[in-house]
Amino acid sequence: MEKKDYKTALIATATRLFAERGLNGVSIRELSTAAGVSISMISYYFDGKEGLYSAVLLDQFSCFRYMESIKERASGPLEKIEEYVRWSIQRNRDYPYLLRYYTSELTNPTRYFSIIVQPALEKALHILIEIIKEGVENKQFREDLNPEDTALAMAGMVNYYFLSTLATQKFINHSPERDEELIRHYMDLFTKGL
Amino acid sequence: MEKKDYKTALIATATRLFAERGLNGVSIRELSTAAGVSISMISYYFDGKEGLYSAVLLDQFSCFRYMESIKERASGPLEKIEEYVRWSIQRNRDYPYLLRYYTSELTNPTRYFSIIVQPALEKALHILIEIIKEGVENKQFREDLNPEDTALAMAGMVNYYFLSTLATQKFINHSPERDEELIRHYMDLFTKGL
Repeated sequence: MEKKDYKTALIATATRLFAERGLNGVSIRELSTAAGVSISMISYYFDGKEGLYSAVLLDQFSCFRYMESIKERASGPLEKIEEYVRWSIQRNRDYPYLLRYYTSELTNPTRYFSIIVQPALEKALHILIEIIKEGVENKQFREDLNPEDTALAMAGMVNYYFLSTLATQKFINHSPERDEELIRHYMDLFTKGL
Repeated sequence: MEKKDYKTALIATATRLFAERGLNGVSIRELSTAAGVSISMISYYFDGKEGLYSAVLLDQFSCFRYMESIKERASGPLEKIEEYVRWSIQRNRDYPYLLRYYTSELTNPTRYFSIIVQPALEKALHILIEIIKEGVENKQFREDLNPEDTALAMAGMVNYYFLSTLATQKFINHSPERDEELIRHYMDLFTKGL
């Protein structure tokens, strides 16, 4: 295998194992056996288990940079919010383990939380808050709208849809075919209310 | 100590330890040392570590029964939704470890998920869905409102406010003094939209 292949294989295996058992629940020996790579290779490429965990986090949270491109678009705040909702859903589809890292780092942070996770989430939320403020300044949104609470409400709505899957799949269809319909319902809820 | 005191002390210690490290991350020896209770006592009262974990889950999720009393109240759907939001916030204030069990059981379920967690969440969500349906039938809410998506959106909003605390506390005030203001913002968002 090439250097790139070893690193990719290790990150893929580690993403699954760390998602299931957390940083402390997986040994470097298990990682080495599961990925078919020697322990010395893990040390060489990632400086050990912790370095591999931080590489997994960097990979999982790299998608948050996409929020910047939403911000730069010329369309109005409502279109940007719809793009945010669409991207939030897609990111959970593309990174099926992301929500586990997201929730475990927020509830039981490792030392990489403040280096990788916090900045990624803060940046994305700040962009969303700016978009909402833009709508209030344009008088498109209510002047008494609280941008921070609204941004958290929007983020929560989409994340919980995925978080609740295991408890709700018996009575709510979570298939990707329904994603556009779901975006429509969310946007209606935010523009029309109940 | 009386029997009740031993059980209470063990559940309190176990709630903290399991919340931090999960069912598999805590040994029966650590539980015994931390609670100042012998291992044989844990076996006697809880039939071992797994039994103690299930007692912790039962205790954490017992508050979900409160949703039934909200359902039974004579007030209309909007007042019931406000009560739901208020209760959801209060439950996170009263049970600071609840969100960790909530998220870890939803992302990495133990065998107690389907016995304790799933029924509690499903029941509460079903009541919320019924409340929303009542509003649609009364023509108080839009007829094209999707009750299931709306219920998940509401649940997500409140849970994420607490889940995101560590990432947002630098720029969003999460103090309990602001809870009533937050409920107001959420209700405005649902009744008036953006």
